[in-house]
Amino acid sequence: MSQPKYLTGDKAGIEEFLSRFDVFLFDCDGVLWSGDHLFPNVAQTLEMLRSKGKRVVFVTNNSTKSRADYKKKFDKMGIPCDVEEVFGSAYSAAVYIARILKLPAPKNKVYVLGETGIEQELDAEGVPHIGGTDPSLRRDIEPEDFTNMANGSALDPDVGVVLAGLDFHVNYLKLAMGFAYLQRGAKFLATNTDSTLPTAHSLFLGAGSVGAPLVNALGREPLSLGKPSQAMMDAIEGKFHFDRSRACMVGDRLNTDIQFGIEGKLGGTLAVLTGVSKKEDFLGEGKETVPMAYVDQLGDLLG
Amino acid sequence: MSQPKYLTGDKAGIEEFLSRFDVFLFDCDGVLWSGDHLFPNVAQTLEMLRSKGKRVVFVTNNSTKSRADYKKKFDKMGIPCDVEEVFGSAYSAAVYIARILKLPAPKNKVYVLGETGIEQELDAEGVPHIGGTDPSLRRDIEPEDFTNMANGSALDPDVGVVLAGLDFHVNYLKLAMGFAYLQRGAKFLATNTDSTLPTAHSLFLGAGSVGAPLVNALGREPLSLGKPSQAMMDAIEGKFHFDRSRACMVGDRLNTDIQFGIEGKLGGTLAVLTGVSKKEDFLGEGKETVPMAYVDQLGDLLG
Repeated sequence: MSQPKYLTGDKAGIEEFLSRFDVFLFDCDGVLWSGDHLFPNVAQTLEMLRSKGKRVVFVTNNSTKSRADYKKKFDKMGIPCDVEEVFGSAYSAAVYIARILKLPAPKNKVYVLGETGIEQELDAEGVPHIGGTDPSLRRDIEPEDFTNMANGSALDPDVGVVLAGLDFHVNYLKLAMGFAYLQRGAKFLATNTDSTLPTAHSLFLGAGSVGAPLVNALGREPLSLGKPSQAMMDAIEGKFHFDRSRACMVGDRLNTDIQFGIEGKLGGTLAVLTGVSKKEDFLGEGKETVPMAYVDQLGDLLG
Repeated sequence: MSQPKYLTGDKAGIEEFLSRFDVFLFDCDGVLWSGDHLFPNVAQTLEMLRSKGKRVVFVTNNSTKSRADYKKKFDKMGIPCDVEEVFGSAYSAAVYIARILKLPAPKNKVYVLGETGIEQELDAEGVPHIGGTDPSLRRDIEPEDFTNMANGSALDPDVGVVLAGLDFHVNYLKLAMGFAYLQRGAKFLATNTDSTLPTAHSLFLGAGSVGAPLVNALGREPLSLGKPSQAMMDAIEGKFHFDRSRACMVGDRLNTDIQFGIEGKLGGTLAVLTGVSKKEDFLGEGKETVPMAYVDQLGDLLG
């Protein structure tokens, strides 16, 4: 396997690399910013790409935020961004349910394990949903709940999908209800299956861990609509209709972002060194996931 | 492999079978009762065994109840029982921590994910603990919780063990705290890892599913102190000091109870058909887990 090209400081190399692509898919955290710290020259780099007629798409596994929420984050960070350029895993799941799964109404209701970002995106796609942030489910499970879930009287017969995402208000009642729907044959989807959530310079539980009780009790995995699942790539392509050979995935993590681009048969992948993966992870012999090129930081593309 | 002997109605067979053992380990649900329904002649059968000088031990994976709680259940069902005859997974875990793990104080504190049964058993063994039913943890996670867990100020430096059991009050905060302790090197134990909890003629989430977020985020399994883990058998033997070749495990589930007895190299195993497994599951050729003998129901041992 050929070694990735190092583009930082290589003006001609950057120009040649950029000329190969019409579309750039960007991971956000670790690429554009880290938490609330913006990396240098990010806004300028994105503007440079747009001025060359490139389409930019921001691809994030964070399911707690809708695209509108994400747009606010971009505004706060001072990065020009159109809401249509944001492709989050909550949106990805909503698009998949509404446009690909297309369960016949009224049996197309979604039971949500997650936050408002998922609900907003389902609303935007016209998909009916229950669960989620419903305050009546933010309570302890009671003896009659077991009975009423077992006999079905506490369940909505129109639920056809259980969608698991990151839920900071997860509890036994909500999990038990999701498991009850799954046992009755609901399709099992996840916005993403990240096991951890990097926050405050530490690791917390990601969407994949919050949904792990359902996986463990049911004995099978959900279809994930987030990176590196190709279902997300299909959803992105379904929306933007681009030529994969003319698209490049930009990210900081080899085993999600770069793998996502390679498995998606994109024309290229670009690693940045401002996040999780280090250059030692992909340089040298026998490395599993190798990007086409890399820069120290995204702003280096300005040349 | 020889076929299991059918003992129902076989007076001589029963007598010969019983004469081989001094100790009988009983699973409870599915053997003595199903929920609140007592099976016929259970109390009389246990009295008959005791009158022949046999020791009886009740072995249960239910970690929400202490031995004292379990004794109350026996009283309610009209079955004579001494609290010392009950061996639950919460007790098993407490015994393991106090007598086998023996972490040096003060670094021997246990962070509990579970209910009062676990706390009672840890108290009885003199093991310090936090978490569990602490009402201050029954709340939503707040932004400062992430920071204070990340910098350690919200964590107790003396926690050396995370013990995961069935917790009906599980939430993101409690899970995140358990994960934080595990990342800092705490030992990872579970009262049991049952994926499901049979209740109200349906399946709900078992201890293994409630603790699955920790397993998923951490990337490794806990040591389980419940059936079929042999750590539980070691704890039972540590307490009762019996000759395994003269002990018999009685249960309704092949893949937990019967396997537990076979792997523990007990002298015998007895299946009852009042619970999960059916005789088709172990009769005939090529069956994986086969009991030594079986009866239709426990009371058939009265002859």
